[in-house]
Amino acid sequence: MYNGMSYKFLDEIGSPADLKRVNLVELPQVCDELRKFIIESEAVNPAHFGANLGVVELTVALHYVFNVPDDNLIWDVGHQAYGHKILTGRRKEFATNRNYGGISGFPTPAESKYDCFGVGHSSTSISAALGMAVAAKMHGSNERTIAVIGDGALSGGEAFEALNNAAVYEPNILIVLNDNKIAIDETPGSLREYLTDISTSKTYNKVKDDVWHFLGKVNKLGPDVRHFTQRIDNAIKSIVMRQSNLFESMNIRYFGPVDGHDVVSLVRLFNDLKNINGPLLLHLITQKGRGFKPAEENPREWHAAPGKFEVETGKVISADADPNSPQKFQDIFGEAVLKLARENEKIVAISPAMVSGSGLVKMFEEFPDRSFDVGISEQHAVTFAAGLATKGIVPYCCIYSTFAQRSFDQIVHDVALQNLHVVLCLDRAGLVGKDGATHHGAFDISYLRCIPNLVISAPSDEYQLRNLLYTAQLEKNNFPFVIRYPRGKSFYPKSEIEFSEMEIGKGKRVRKGDDLAIVSIGTAGHTAIKVADKLHDDDSVTVSVYDMVFVKPLDENLLREACETHKYIVTIEDNVMAGGFGSEVLEFVSDNDYDVKVKRFGIPDRFVMHGTQEELIRECGYDADSVYGWIKKRLFC
Amino acid sequence: MYNGMSYKFLDEIGSPADLKRVNLVELPQVCDELRKFIIESEAVNPAHFGANLGVVELTVALHYVFNVPDDNLIWDVGHQAYGHKILTGRRKEFATNRNYGGISGFPTPAESKYDCFGVGHSSTSISAALGMAVAAKMHGSNERTIAVIGDGALSGGEAFEALNNAAVYEPNILIVLNDNKIAIDETPGSLREYLTDISTSKTYNKVKDDVWHFLGKVNKLGPDVRHFTQRIDNAIKSIVMRQSNLFESMNIRYFGPVDGHDVVSLVRLFNDLKNINGPLLLHLITQKGRGFKPAEENPREWHAAPGKFEVETGKVISADADPNSPQKFQDIFGEAVLKLARENEKIVAISPAMVSGSGLVKMFEEFPDRSFDVGISEQHAVTFAAGLATKGIVPYCCIYSTFAQRSFDQIVHDVALQNLHVVLCLDRAGLVGKDGATHHGAFDISYLRCIPNLVISAPSDEYQLRNLLYTAQLEKNNFPFVIRYPRGKSFYPKSEIEFSEMEIGKGKRVRKGDDLAIVSIGTAGHTAIKVADKLHDDDSVTVSVYDMVFVKPLDENLLREACETHKYIVTIEDNVMAGGFGSEVLEFVSDNDYDVKVKRFGIPDRFVMHGTQEELIRECGYDADSVYGWIKKRLFC
Repeated sequence: MYNGMSYKFLDEIGSPADLKRVNLVELPQVCDELRKFIIESEAVNPAHFGANLGVVELTVALHYVFNVPDDNLIWDVGHQAYGHKILTGRRKEFATNRNYGGISGFPTPAESKYDCFGVGHSSTSISAALGMAVAAKMHGSNERTIAVIGDGALSGGEAFEALNNAAVYEPNILIVLNDNKIAIDETPGSLREYLTDISTSKTYNKVKDDVWHFLGKVNKLGPDVRHFTQRIDNAIKSIVMRQSNLFESMNIRYFGPVDGHDVVSLVRLFNDLKNINGPLLLHLITQKGRGFKPAEENPREWHAAPGKFEVETGKVISADADPNSPQKFQDIFGEAVLKLARENEKIVAISPAMVSGSGLVKMFEEFPDRSFDVGISEQHAVTFAAGLATKGIVPYCCIYSTFAQRSFDQIVHDVALQNLHVVLCLDRAGLVGKDGATHHGAFDISYLRCIPNLVISAPSDEYQLRNLLYTAQLEKNNFPFVIRYPRGKSFYPKSEIEFSEMEIGKGKRVRKGDDLAIVSIGTAGHTAIKVADKLHDDDSVTVSVYDMVFVKPLDENLLREACETHKYIVTIEDNVMAGGFGSEVLEFVSDNDYDVKVKRFGIPDRFVMHGTQEELIRECGYDADSVYGWIKKRLFC
Repeated sequence: MYNGMSYKFLDEIGSPADLKRVNLVELPQVCDELRKFIIESEAVNPAHFGANLGVVELTVALHYVFNVPDDNLIWDVGHQAYGHKILTGRRKEFATNRNYGGISGFPTPAESKYDCFGVGHSSTSISAALGMAVAAKMHGSNERTIAVIGDGALSGGEAFEALNNAAVYEPNILIVLNDNKIAIDETPGSLREYLTDISTSKTYNKVKDDVWHFLGKVNKLGPDVRHFTQRIDNAIKSIVMRQSNLFESMNIRYFGPVDGHDVVSLVRLFNDLKNINGPLLLHLITQKGRGFKPAEENPREWHAAPGKFEVETGKVISADADPNSPQKFQDIFGEAVLKLARENEKIVAISPAMVSGSGLVKMFEEFPDRSFDVGISEQHAVTFAAGLATKGIVPYCCIYSTFAQRSFDQIVHDVALQNLHVVLCLDRAGLVGKDGATHHGAFDISYLRCIPNLVISAPSDEYQLRNLLYTAQLEKNNFPFVIRYPRGKSFYPKSEIEFSEMEIGKGKRVRKGDDLAIVSIGTAGHTAIKVADKLHDDDSVTVSVYDMVFVKPLDENLLREACETHKYIVTIEDNVMAGGFGSEVLEFVSDNDYDVKVKRFGIPDRFVMHGTQEELIRECGYDADSVYGWIKKRLFC
């Protein structure tokens, strides 16, 4: 629906071929409809927002000129690909975006032939594009490969590794730098300043017009295009480049910057560029949230739609917030770090472009000199933290669990091996919900517990999170300290209580029973208690529940008690079972020769798609009902 | 000893303070002695060679001017720090370099206060330096932080992430780009071309002299240094920069390129640079192997000394090679890939700057268009492979196990989740020997087996390696295929036999016994057989031995047999036990409710230092004697 009407163009577009039948001059109206469609859809099914509105014209122009899927179109980070999904046959399914059983919020080859590469994490697109372009050369194919990458994603080291390789094999790739001057948070760094500088330069803007003019001609000139565009390049360089061009120094031909919201000009430009061989980079200036005023004015708040909203005003439609409602773990984390930073001047915070998502906005405002947004640079974030730690600073390096995979080697080599006092806060550990397969923090217990020297903890609730954050900064605990905690709501009404120290490697028994022990890590402890209570109330089975708190070091005394006083142990964790916490319990049982049966619950050995956290945990079978059902059927029938 | 004489200067230098007492004009002789000392030491105790000779003057000049450890000196990759070790009190211990119980081949804070950061993997130095420099600002300290980074290491994405952050906090860091025009292998990429271009530019070389001239004056001018050097910068830029300066576009002040072998000039230059605040980059041109003719002429061969050698001629002193001696796994790998590439034109090889170390030289020579040295860029290497695989190309992406840690996220997100036919060859898996703690491939089974969709294999000998390489490229096996294999000598005399296909997820029983089962993965299979034979011969204990071949999928039928026909299972693996292969066996036993005791052998939960592989395996207790001893004592006494 579109202002109560049907969509004149959009309703007819079931594939890029349909789009190509639209007249060039009517493309602005297609863009208008596409933008409206995204806004209306998200008003009832909120999702990533600002970036998608920013690339509407780019999306339409790319599909108008190139022949996807014969040509390859890769969307870096992927959450900017809604327009692409809508134009490639998924308009109706878009209502199910990110919902359980619905389409994914990211391009997914398994979902559509138009999604040539799966993208969720940042900065992979140029590498993948190079692979496809080199394969095209091997196959003698003339196909084109386009990587659309945002300015924020460009700071990721992998993008630079790829740029460094881009010119070597003369691949036919077009890198579209979608410069919206803001990543999720305003990404700092020299690159940011650099792009701003060249895109605001008056000289550059003058030359830009010349480029358009030249390219207009070039199109009519046919195969000798290269010669002419070379001249343009040289003209630009000699006139403009006081500040040197980063991309040209990597042997990648640079075009731009140009207005990313002029769809007709974009089509003309792409028609020219598609005939130029070798690696090209087109620098596009776009506006995040374009065409929806609240999002234009508050791009950070509208990175994702903040909830269901009124299409006309952007007013968020929400049930009245209950003041007793539990806070998000992220807010508890951010408030605790801020409080600790006030008390301990050695504390600093590091975030790789996730300041608001991590709950660190207030910390960054109050202590700008002790807060470091390093951009999408997880590797650097961790080694930077290690460097700070060598000098007695206590860095809280907060990375989403799934993105910490990017810094795995740095955790091993720079933090653990050197036994440095870095507090590694793994946000969004476990199943994250609607972001789905690319974003679940499903593996961290497995990939971290094999590393020596790490202390690895997982609070079962917000009190433990606060106390672990407090404990981690104590001077005596000057070793690597990992704290993993989930995305979203915590458990109890907000309250102000003092921090208290937790003993390293000490868990606790929270229920005492005879028939069975449930041993849990992290917030799975709440599942454990639910299961124990139900077994007690419904079946008169008494259960001991152990909240281990620490993956490493394991509380061996506590586990010994569990093994010596029970015949059955059930483990629950919000991590893959392969090599996870339950596996560690098995190692303990085996190493100590206990005669106890262990049943493990957690994420199975397959990738889990998207949906609410509850839906996914149920699907994986480690929700309270499933665990209860299994225990009752297998042990007490 | 030095030509039969003692070292006039070196013998008196026990610390940097001693060095500072030498007259400036005598520094060339100190360099001469240091170089000779390294050559003479390595002639009897071979180690990393060429890079160390290349930085002799740099090392002397840095320690002459800066006050390490009050100032912080970080050597990227670390194997270029021998001169640094020798000048900082480890001259006598240098004879033990890389030997069991001796000093480490890499800077190690636990070894010396002069080693401020542990470095073994590439491209970490700038991040760590930024951390230290920011900490210095917080502490109000005027200390300087110097990161020495080679041109090869600069291509690693983390270095770029750090450069992108370098200018933001105005840290007092000096990045010394040690440009020796060759990493381990000639690293390709635009950066390589770029550096060559600016260092050979005539204009630049002219301007270089002007810089020296200016800086000579600057030193006498005192605090207003900044103003003057700014003028120099502008002069350089306006005269020279046809090709733009990459580093200046990152807001890092660039100096150079200058001759890295003129120690007196370097001292003068560092004296100037140390008074300039903010991030600086000095581009130094050095020669790998400098001062030792064979290494100058064959820098690739002399990256590490190829064996004990004659100091005068460079002639390698080696026992006559036995033609029946087993080949290295690396050579077997390279020959097999080449042979397969001849038969299957879809096969390509990818190496992140480890072409010769991986045994791929012949492949790169015969198929230059199907061989990709991407530089030190493990992240890019894996996603590039994934991109190729989307188009039906079969990439053999060969990465040392320890460096594959850098591409962990790409393995998860780009290969496994998309279920792409990438053959990931993990070279140097397990304990690697003298490279020590930073380089052991100790973790890969643990960090990979938690990832869905991966097939993970580990050949027990060279025949299996060849057959797995063959099997991995078959069209029907179009899924992610990991093959891990160790560093060094294989087991059997060289022989030419045809490839044969191996069944995915199928292991084999290689001994049949009653009293015990030994279940092994990879080359630990040979240990298992030794143990079994000894138990049989000495103790009349009969042992079944299972070579599982596949970590994943596990051969459940075979393991079922082991569990159902034995009371005890012993597992052996060349990987950490935490979450490793033995842990997987425990999971199987538990999930299937078998009543069998399992004892695991492998790498314990601590970092393992350096020594020969045999020494380290013995120390870790999974050599044949230790396993035999444990079994005899615990099970059959």
